[in-house]
Amino acid sequence: MNKSDIEIAQEAKMKPISEIAEQLDLHVDEWEPHGHYKAKLSLDVLKRLDSKPSGKVVLVTAISPTPAGEGKSTVSVGLGQALNRIGKKTIIALREPSLGPSMGIKGGAAGGGYSQVIPMEDINLHFTGDLHAITSAHNALSALLDNHIHQGNELQIDTRRVVWKRVLDLNDRALRNVVVGLGGPVQGVPREDGFDITVASEIMAILCLSKDINDLKHRLSKMVVAYNYSKEPVTVADLGVQGALALLLKDAIKPNLVQTLENTPALIHGGPFANIAHGCNSVMATRMASKLGDYVVTEAGFGADLGAEKFFDIKTRAGDIEPAATVIVATARALKMHGGVAKNQLTEENVGALERGMANLEKHVETIRTFGVPFVVGINRFNSDSEQEIQFILDWCAERNIEVALSEVWAKGGAGGEELANKVVELVENGTNTFEPIYDVSLPIIEKIETIARKVYGASGIELSPKAKRQISEFDKAGWNNLPICMAKTQYSLSDDPSKLGRPEGFIISIREFRPSIGAGFIVALTGTVMTMPGLPKKPAALNMDVTEDGKAIGLF
Amino acid sequence: MNKSDIEIAQEAKMKPISEIAEQLDLHVDEWEPHGHYKAKLSLDVLKRLDSKPSGKVVLVTAISPTPAGEGKSTVSVGLGQALNRIGKKTIIALREPSLGPSMGIKGGAAGGGYSQVIPMEDINLHFTGDLHAITSAHNALSALLDNHIHQGNELQIDTRRVVWKRVLDLNDRALRNVVVGLGGPVQGVPREDGFDITVASEIMAILCLSKDINDLKHRLSKMVVAYNYSKEPVTVADLGVQGALALLLKDAIKPNLVQTLENTPALIHGGPFANIAHGCNSVMATRMASKLGDYVVTEAGFGADLGAEKFFDIKTRAGDIEPAATVIVATARALKMHGGVAKNQLTEENVGALERGMANLEKHVETIRTFGVPFVVGINRFNSDSEQEIQFILDWCAERNIEVALSEVWAKGGAGGEELANKVVELVENGTNTFEPIYDVSLPIIEKIETIARKVYGASGIELSPKAKRQISEFDKAGWNNLPICMAKTQYSLSDDPSKLGRPEGFIISIREFRPSIGAGFIVALTGTVMTMPGLPKKPAALNMDVTEDGKAIGLF
Repeated sequence: MNKSDIEIAQEAKMKPISEIAEQLDLHVDEWEPHGHYKAKLSLDVLKRLDSKPSGKVVLVTAISPTPAGEGKSTVSVGLGQALNRIGKKTIIALREPSLGPSMGIKGGAAGGGYSQVIPMEDINLHFTGDLHAITSAHNALSALLDNHIHQGNELQIDTRRVVWKRVLDLNDRALRNVVVGLGGPVQGVPREDGFDITVASEIMAILCLSKDINDLKHRLSKMVVAYNYSKEPVTVADLGVQGALALLLKDAIKPNLVQTLENTPALIHGGPFANIAHGCNSVMATRMASKLGDYVVTEAGFGADLGAEKFFDIKTRAGDIEPAATVIVATARALKMHGGVAKNQLTEENVGALERGMANLEKHVETIRTFGVPFVVGINRFNSDSEQEIQFILDWCAERNIEVALSEVWAKGGAGGEELANKVVELVENGTNTFEPIYDVSLPIIEKIETIARKVYGASGIELSPKAKRQISEFDKAGWNNLPICMAKTQYSLSDDPSKLGRPEGFIISIREFRPSIGAGFIVALTGTVMTMPGLPKKPAALNMDVTEDGKAIGLF
Repeated sequence: MNKSDIEIAQEAKMKPISEIAEQLDLHVDEWEPHGHYKAKLSLDVLKRLDSKPSGKVVLVTAISPTPAGEGKSTVSVGLGQALNRIGKKTIIALREPSLGPSMGIKGGAAGGGYSQVIPMEDINLHFTGDLHAITSAHNALSALLDNHIHQGNELQIDTRRVVWKRVLDLNDRALRNVVVGLGGPVQGVPREDGFDITVASEIMAILCLSKDINDLKHRLSKMVVAYNYSKEPVTVADLGVQGALALLLKDAIKPNLVQTLENTPALIHGGPFANIAHGCNSVMATRMASKLGDYVVTEAGFGADLGAEKFFDIKTRAGDIEPAATVIVATARALKMHGGVAKNQLTEENVGALERGMANLEKHVETIRTFGVPFVVGINRFNSDSEQEIQFILDWCAERNIEVALSEVWAKGGAGGEELANKVVELVENGTNTFEPIYDVSLPIIEKIETIARKVYGASGIELSPKAKRQISEFDKAGWNNLPICMAKTQYSLSDDPSKLGRPEGFIISIREFRPSIGAGFIVALTGTVMTMPGLPKKPAALNMDVTEDGKAIGLF
């Protein structure tokens, strides 16, 4: 019988975090314990090691996600463990999960099987409080903004044009659209408002793209919260509260150190949305990991069309990060879904569907090639995969001279990832790396989007709504045209239609509207409605949750 | 020049929290570090020391508060330090402050001068995340409740009768009255709602009155969140989510260990509102302190009419806590205000006003006598107090055979509290203690309130609104009549009229309505409107806040 993730995690022999810190040669004043198995690392580490050559950053990305699951985090953790096994000092850098979804659907976000980061209950619950600090800072800004309006509105904020919503780290559909300030003149000024989930906060994106506390403060100050009656942007700097927000984030900006089941160090820090934001862990964590190790394994949300593109075009620019290699995770199951198989028929062998589904992988391979980063396809093996299916993928890659490796890290931990690890090292040491972002930020907004749509999605063109066109001219006036683009597109399809799996062709990407994230430093291009506050299902996972008398979590996974 | 609180705090020589834990003979597996100067203590400590005789619990209370400030926390911290100086192993147990007010008005809540708990920035910001956990649990319940309604409303919840509001740990008046669930059928069910500040959450009161995790879960399950179409209460147990809420609180229920400027151990845990709740730190912290030390110094919110009464009638019953002595803190400044002096004239000597103001102290002295607990008046000395004023208070007490001691702990730390400490020890060792709660919980609700109003406030009677009368008969039907009463009355006056300072007489206490807090285990009796979500002032303290490059807080105090 297979053990559940939580059973495996709870049986793990964790090392005290002090040992992990020693393993990384951290000075005693550079880390703070949070319990016995978590620590926060001081940003002084970055200063001390500034001149040290950076370790190699390996990005784990994937084919377009399906309900079958790809196991990107599992492969990231397993690869990190495997690299350590073959003698490379490796640190894993991952996003920290949001609490909200865990109340709805069972399932954590810390890898799986024998490739997990631990303590998984802590990581999936409050962890070290980073998300709570972001929630506090975000809503403090909301309160200060509404207070400004209530106390005389010196900045002449148009209450119909407040763009700064509130946030909670919960799935709560009833808060998507609200009216605040009701109850009469001493209870504030009534206006329409709404709540997003905390990971959708621009502050989360900022935390993840900042290099240090001054950069954080500078970015916070530039956030646009509303427009005044003359339709000019009102920023945090206008309200004068960037210092207070930064103060609330002073510990949240420190990367969190934990370990994997095999005691590989992992920095888990920041977790922005992968649609209206860039979906990568913090620049500070990735940089710190690269200074503390020879190899860093990190990931980006969704498939390569979104995650890898944003990693390459947004995160590397903000963080001076050089990608050394990429792993494109694929599973036979997910490829079969791209080939037309329904979710309940995935356990049946179907090489025909698999063959059709390979087109999705093929497009992502082309994309990574376009960016010039050496890559390997990592097949994340599931128990239900047949030998024929696995062999088909291996042959398919071999015929095309595509590096490929089987990963069995879910079932075997690091030992199951050695083949992949060896290929990654080979690529890093001997592969040809001509990495460059795919567009120049100084190009007009429309050209940047067109470049992404054509080269990454394989679209035949783009079209803009009248509103989007109007916004572009407003952004030109505001001086916001030299920023990277953050595409908000469905993750399920290369196109903007989630039902088009595989490799759709001849489609147009429609830009509905833009959202300027000036603090984060990108322009979000919305191709459809983006859900920024999830809801709970009819039978939420919370119904099965409990805690024992001695504090053990039940029903969390 | 006097140093500011933060200057004193930042110059303090903190001991590593491991040393404080060793000082308390805690086993290594009984505490978890949170940074180098904070720790969470396992509830196993209570089990291990269950049969050990408890240390003496000293309650610090005060006269009716005025804008002049009384310094109850400062005296508590100073007294704890002083008791240690005179050889009594003493632990301080205090409430943890809310983040919200600190964004509004400058000033922390961790004592002052040379009697502070530290690290004060941490304590006043996110601390160990307890309040964030309560915010999460509270709002998770809101989301689960609204989801239940949205997904078919099996429990037939009347959306006009949802009594469970949402919370944030912020001062945000715009959230007092809101409408949620707008936007059409897939966005939830529209209804009126509102946000309280987190410390007003019933979950905070429950956390503070629970003995262990099972008690916590049991209390959570009894919370009333709404009424159904038949006007019957709907509880958390009906929704089946007490386990999930308890899971979210599994670390928050562990008391937090910090230290004072003189390295006296302090447990800072829980901080319920002192009006709609009972205003005391957690039962678990007070009990744990009493097992780890010979003396515990703890406090209760507002003056003795509210804080001490609730400590004696609610907290001691929930936590099997025996009060050994009480300190009634008074200041010349505040007594002068009770005697009619305006705030801007407090620095001028005015023995006449002081004499008139003594009536307020006199009433609180009578109250503590009624409860049968030995007590001493602690005069918290301010720099501006004249010798004559201090002498007047000393003489006044001497004439009435009231124990009194001068406290100079703000200026001198523990050394300034030795006289008070010696008197406290004398009272504990040789005083007559006939402590008993002032009413029997099995009395009818109306008689319990009448007892408090007459014996504690000095009222000549009570009157109930028609609504309150109707509620009493509803509560009888629901079986809620055998609970203690939690009075929500203005703290500024012994009466329910905040303008009546000193010792008003011949007044009636009017009960407007009741709020059943069935999980916490008390019935709140509202004598007027109670503000459960504060607002920000015109120039919020946040405007002056900042953080330096190396993470030092600016403008927090």
